[in-house]
Amino acid sequence: MRTEISTLGEFGLIRRLTEGIELKNKSSQYGIGDDAAVLSYPSEKEILVTTDLLMEGVHFDLTYVPLKHLGYKSAIVNFSDIYAMNGIPRQITVSLGLSKRFSVEDMEELYAGIRLACEEYEVDIVGGDTSSSYTGLTISITCIGEGEKGKVVFRNGANETDLICVSGDLGAAYMGLQLLEREKSVLHGADKNVQPDFSGKEYLLERQLKPEARRDIIEKLAEEEIRPTSMMDISDGLSSELLHICTQSKVGCRIYEEHIPIDYQTAVMAEEFNMNLTICALNGGDDYELLFTVPISDHEKVSEMEGIKLIGHITKQELGCALITRDGQEFELKAQGWNSLQEETDPIEKPE
Amino acid sequence: MRTEISTLGEFGLIRRLTEGIELKNKSSQYGIGDDAAVLSYPSEKEILVTTDLLMEGVHFDLTYVPLKHLGYKSAIVNFSDIYAMNGIPRQITVSLGLSKRFSVEDMEELYAGIRLACEEYEVDIVGGDTSSSYTGLTISITCIGEGEKGKVVFRNGANETDLICVSGDLGAAYMGLQLLEREKSVLHGADKNVQPDFSGKEYLLERQLKPEARRDIIEKLAEEEIRPTSMMDISDGLSSELLHICTQSKVGCRIYEEHIPIDYQTAVMAEEFNMNLTICALNGGDDYELLFTVPISDHEKVSEMEGIKLIGHITKQELGCALITRDGQEFELKAQGWNSLQEETDPIEKPE
Repeated sequence: MRTEISTLGEFGLIRRLTEGIELKNKSSQYGIGDDAAVLSYPSEKEILVTTDLLMEGVHFDLTYVPLKHLGYKSAIVNFSDIYAMNGIPRQITVSLGLSKRFSVEDMEELYAGIRLACEEYEVDIVGGDTSSSYTGLTISITCIGEGEKGKVVFRNGANETDLICVSGDLGAAYMGLQLLEREKSVLHGADKNVQPDFSGKEYLLERQLKPEARRDIIEKLAEEEIRPTSMMDISDGLSSELLHICTQSKVGCRIYEEHIPIDYQTAVMAEEFNMNLTICALNGGDDYELLFTVPISDHEKVSEMEGIKLIGHITKQELGCALITRDGQEFELKAQGWNSLQEETDPIEKPE
Repeated sequence: MRTEISTLGEFGLIRRLTEGIELKNKSSQYGIGDDAAVLSYPSEKEILVTTDLLMEGVHFDLTYVPLKHLGYKSAIVNFSDIYAMNGIPRQITVSLGLSKRFSVEDMEELYAGIRLACEEYEVDIVGGDTSSSYTGLTISITCIGEGEKGKVVFRNGANETDLICVSGDLGAAYMGLQLLEREKSVLHGADKNVQPDFSGKEYLLERQLKPEARRDIIEKLAEEEIRPTSMMDISDGLSSELLHICTQSKVGCRIYEEHIPIDYQTAVMAEEFNMNLTICALNGGDDYELLFTVPISDHEKVSEMEGIKLIGHITKQELGCALITRDGQEFELKAQGWNSLQEETDPIEKPE
């Protein structure tokens, strides 16, 4: 079944997509339907605002990304930015630019994914804009969240001797993307009857197609009364993000190859693709894990936290930023993270 | 001079565009440079959030819209939505999708327009996202503003016997667009040396290319202690907006053709184009004037306000929505306002 968007028009489409949306957060006073949404936060909260623009062909490839997954991920990447400030996401606005290629049902799929993410993370959809587009799909989401006054964590607070911590594991989403790209080229090749074989690689696909934001880590840190000195989420790759923290904090760092958390499936896949596993973990994008620093006095507490790995420590700025390999060599860290404006020749390689 | 964006990369471009930006509003705690911006509003304020997505070829045509003007207007349309809630815009985030056609200098022009609008309206740029795009220019702006608690004005509060008011004049921006479109087709015709002649039509062009948001009206209403019962800004045309107010307020209305405010240049131009002037004023988009209703007890106060016209009154819902023509005939009001998803065949006709 395919209903043309033109049969509903802008307002009809918005009505259809947003039907039944209820506001659940106390701070969401008035949602969709007026010139602006109305929010109300108590004055002891800081308000956090982040925004992401996703363009078809640059950030996603609809030949292998289902629209529902895309919707889910579009919301998650924004939530992740709010958690990375030690905050809690509360509202989003969703703007969509749609070419005629898309039907009402397509948009329902996309929106179902966004709504699912919002349900799971208790975030309200409070507004947006919908427009036609001459080409492809554009998704622009803005997320508003809250932080406790004085407890928001920036990138610029890392101090010498702080411990560098990472949640979860790295590189799996990047490997998932490699896998999808490979299957795409196989499918576009000679035999269209070959079905992709993803068995044993489910984790990689899930990390790429249905990432989660690390709310659980933020909650645990609060429970343990650990307040990171700096934090950000890893969307462009560990190297790139760690360099942001070091530059903004005016410090250097040492991280240890052997401590970088990598899943078994990621390692197997890197072997299969004949890729350097550490480089994948350092530079692969789309992990949405949290990278943060804590004072050395929190060593015990943080080492006991499940799902957190200590990967190194902060140094004086003069010492620069380096990776210590398993055999004890030192390599300068470089940002080879995905940069959507530099790698236009093959921008789908490492989406943000 | 043309600097390719790829020579700077995403972070370099953002640095260049946002250089020297200072936060001026007390509510702007931390702007560009982290995972999210940090805002701080006192609890007696409501927080207003609005967003607009502008796509090249749909909402603007760069063959006759200078990038600086486009930047200015992109910001203004968002400010206008905040004023329409009886609020004050305070912050924006700016997301840009750029194809290779655009240079660093182009983006500086666009940003100069956005920054100019922000200076004039005392709004801070606190964040955004920049990405490559396979086609054209995409601009997604989210604006955050504040309203006094209990004084935010919605679309749904109009009551029977309320007076219907409009600021400024209508239809001029639409005529400006017709003029630009005509000159474009002339220029794309045989003789490329013909220079467009816009003398005596400056007002129409300004309304289309450099609209303003009606902060002054919001300030005057507050001074006069007039609190509108409903309000919205006119971006899609008076008819369409008035129908929104009537539907959401569950009322009807009567407006009078003879009272619709129209500038002299708009009238001359409609004559020249052989267009029905009233239809242009009712359905032309891009006016960014305020449409609001006030209790009849405010009749005296509101009729003395400069730049405000009373165009009719609110009725019972059963009476429907109608225009009374100069010769006393009644016509049902219909929304022929611009709808970017319905009129894809000629979407540039009436941008939002």
